[in-house]
Amino acid sequence: MNLILFEPAELSAPLPRSDPRAAHLLNVLRRSAGDTFDAGLINGPRGKGTVVTVGPDALTLAFTWDSASPAPESITLLIGLPRPQTARDILREATSLGVDALHFFAAEKSEPGYAQSTLWASGEWRRHLLAGAEQAFTTRLPTLTHGQSLAAVIASLPAGTTCVALDNYESPQALSAVAVAAPVALAFGPERGWSAAERDLLRAQGFTLAHLGQRVLRSETAVIAALAIVRARLGLL
Amino acid sequence: MNLILFEPAELSAPLPRSDPRAAHLLNVLRRSAGDTFDAGLINGPRGKGTVVTVGPDALTLAFTWDSASPAPESITLLIGLPRPQTARDILREATSLGVDALHFFAAEKSEPGYAQSTLWASGEWRRHLLAGAEQAFTTRLPTLTHGQSLAAVIASLPAGTTCVALDNYESPQALSAVAVAAPVALAFGPERGWSAAERDLLRAQGFTLAHLGQRVLRSETAVIAALAIVRARLGLL
Repeated sequence: MNLILFEPAELSAPLPRSDPRAAHLLNVLRRSAGDTFDAGLINGPRGKGTVVTVGPDALTLAFTWDSASPAPESITLLIGLPRPQTARDILREATSLGVDALHFFAAEKSEPGYAQSTLWASGEWRRHLLAGAEQAFTTRLPTLTHGQSLAAVIASLPAGTTCVALDNYESPQALSAVAVAAPVALAFGPERGWSAAERDLLRAQGFTLAHLGQRVLRSETAVIAALAIVRARLGLL
Repeated sequence: MNLILFEPAELSAPLPRSDPRAAHLLNVLRRSAGDTFDAGLINGPRGKGTVVTVGPDALTLAFTWDSASPAPESITLLIGLPRPQTARDILREATSLGVDALHFFAAEKSEPGYAQSTLWASGEWRRHLLAGAEQAFTTRLPTLTHGQSLAAVIASLPAGTTCVALDNYESPQALSAVAVAAPVALAFGPERGWSAAERDLLRAQGFTLAHLGQRVLRSETAVIAALAIVRARLGLL
């Protein structure tokens, strides 16, 4: 937790000592009354927090904010629903690296049970976005959808998006050989890959199929590698 | 485990049923006598294994090998000793993506206790290289050293190596802007970063300092991202 993030509505209320951020301030950063720390307003500016009082049940905090909020990112990810532990890693690391939106869609080869995970039903997913942003020292969270169809997600992409689908099996070229300009959409199948119908849909909707070499990478590793390559091509890494 | 790897010395002996590979063959792949599976000889060819007999204590296996062994990789990583759990992820993922050698050196800001981890003392590290190779469907394991000094590791690099050190703080340019040609050495500090003396040594030894953008990435994520960018630049991803 390099940056401690707050919702706008949290700024005027005491922070309960049961909140993990309070425990982090007191026990890891060892802050006491009068001390400052790096704070951020979600999707807003970064700044400094000050511990005003340490009460038995809650901390009172005050904030001063810098002027600038982070610019939107230019990459959208489409991800066939993976097993929940893989999704957690992708949620955190994609947010750390920087994406504008994450769309987890029910792919034909996704295990149906994955959509019922508490990760999605309980809203736990947002905690992993916050962890990724706090790690990366940014306030910017991607927007997220889950459970839409691939066709619906594709229909929601802005006109002019460079669309690339990662595919180990039917790709004529490496991702690094694809010409990309912002905004970019990167699509990943689930662990068991794309179905024939999904490949047809992707091609019909203007997606270029590209691979990441002959090696079979874990899904979360492929997401990090592809994001790094595209962000480098866009001059961002 | 997309590929099951064997040491040369293991080929002529029965595989004990207590071996995780035997459990994988019987319980995950559900192979029985007469069935085949994808096998590899470490640093040698891939091929097919056949389950000949399933005994109460061991499996008898037979193998046929393709002719080609994988080519050596062209990237060496120098990594300031990180905490062991981070090192495990780096061992596995760097092997999956493809590196020639991994050198974990005792950096000035490495926690001294990290070098005493059972990860290194017990030889456990090799298990993570095998897991990365089995995931990536390759037989190639990187060579590995741990506990050397940074100066000793640098002295071991072949002449003509493109040397780049990742640094969030004193880098004039992004990694993607550095001209690279094989072979490449990529150096990463430990979680707490490089010391001033280490930066002086790296610069004196011809390393270019480069960053991965303004965001603070986890060490394992930075290794994957940097490897992806450099492999893409070398035409490998």
